[in-house]
Amino acid sequence: MSTLPEKKPPVRIKWLVTSTGDAWLSQAIANPIEVLIDHAHCERKAAGWAVQMMFRYLCEPGLAEVLSPLAREELDHFERVLEILISRGRYLEPLPAPPYGAALGQQIRKVEPERMLDSFLVAGLIEARSHERMSLLATHSPDKELADLYGELLESEARHFGIYRTLADERFEKEVIVSRLRELAEYEAHILSELHPEPRMHA
Amino acid sequence: MSTLPEKKPPVRIKWLVTSTGDAWLSQAIANPIEVLIDHAHCERKAAGWAVQMMFRYLCEPGLAEVLSPLAREELDHFERVLEILISRGRYLEPLPAPPYGAALGQQIRKVEPERMLDSFLVAGLIEARSHERMSLLATHSPDKELADLYGELLESEARHFGIYRTLADERFEKEVIVSRLRELAEYEAHILSELHPEPRMHA
Repeated sequence: MSTLPEKKPPVRIKWLVTSTGDAWLSQAIANPIEVLIDHAHCERKAAGWAVQMMFRYLCEPGLAEVLSPLAREELDHFERVLEILISRGRYLEPLPAPPYGAALGQQIRKVEPERMLDSFLVAGLIEARSHERMSLLATHSPDKELADLYGELLESEARHFGIYRTLADERFEKEVIVSRLRELAEYEAHILSELHPEPRMHA
Repeated sequence: MSTLPEKKPPVRIKWLVTSTGDAWLSQAIANPIEVLIDHAHCERKAAGWAVQMMFRYLCEPGLAEVLSPLAREELDHFERVLEILISRGRYLEPLPAPPYGAALGQQIRKVEPERMLDSFLVAGLIEARSHERMSLLATHSPDKELADLYGELLESEARHFGIYRTLADERFEKEVIVSRLRELAEYEAHILSELHPEPRMHA
């Protein structure tokens, strides 16, 4: 009998367990500026999140050199969205945030190393959902400038959830990642299962 | 008699009230890696500071569009310093910070709009001191790679305190700015008047 460990096929990580429906898309297309303002807030929060993780895990090799460029890219996106808002006579008006981000954040366990894993996975899930919805807007938005914007930002968003996945892969067992991601992804889908009354990127 | 207001000459804002002496430079040149690690921490803290102000004054027009690119540039500097550290087999080791930043931060008044003005001026003072000390290192460091690095980062540092000055100029009376800056600059010089036992950028 062989003592070699059984070779497992590579595990493909699937982020989202549900697809966004027509109701969200209709609401978003009917309220393009509100969604755009919300999107600007999402980009700055994503930058803040990356900076925060970089500060928290300062001495963890391989983290700051990945999270810092990621934060820069989120800030660059923020500036691009802000520029369009300003060109249309609007600004970063305060918008009541949907419960999405806070509810997902509450799922992050308080002890290490679980806290780190959950932080990567929650950030990746949010990026994955943003990517999915920006794809929808890039395809269906009747406002060409906005459709083009979402189309251009899409590529980086896809890279971003890849980055969080890699950060997790480098530090945790595949089985642990996949199992926890499934739980979080189901919770993410659950939060979105009731459409938030206001048009938001993650409503 | 004329009722025209008296025309005042433009006020030149001078940031630093003291110059760095030889003792600091000797200590810094004798401990290049420790100063470099400290510098990496300074750049990330400067980025964090810009992001934090952007978040705090979210609806203040003209702020986010200036602070976001500034934060990106600080992060870019952070990455450049980190790259040199890694190439020399080092990383972001935790270093006890000198009292400088915290002591200056405590001078920021708690009520608006004074809080905003002080935040700009404290950030500008720190940038101005970094600029002065990086100039010294660019000129005197015997380590060519480090001298070149400081030389390259200098230009942006000079722009950074200019940015904070402009942000203050756009929102506050010149007299108010100059008077408060003098107080803060004297305090800044006072903090630095005793050389911190450890080699640091702001020791």
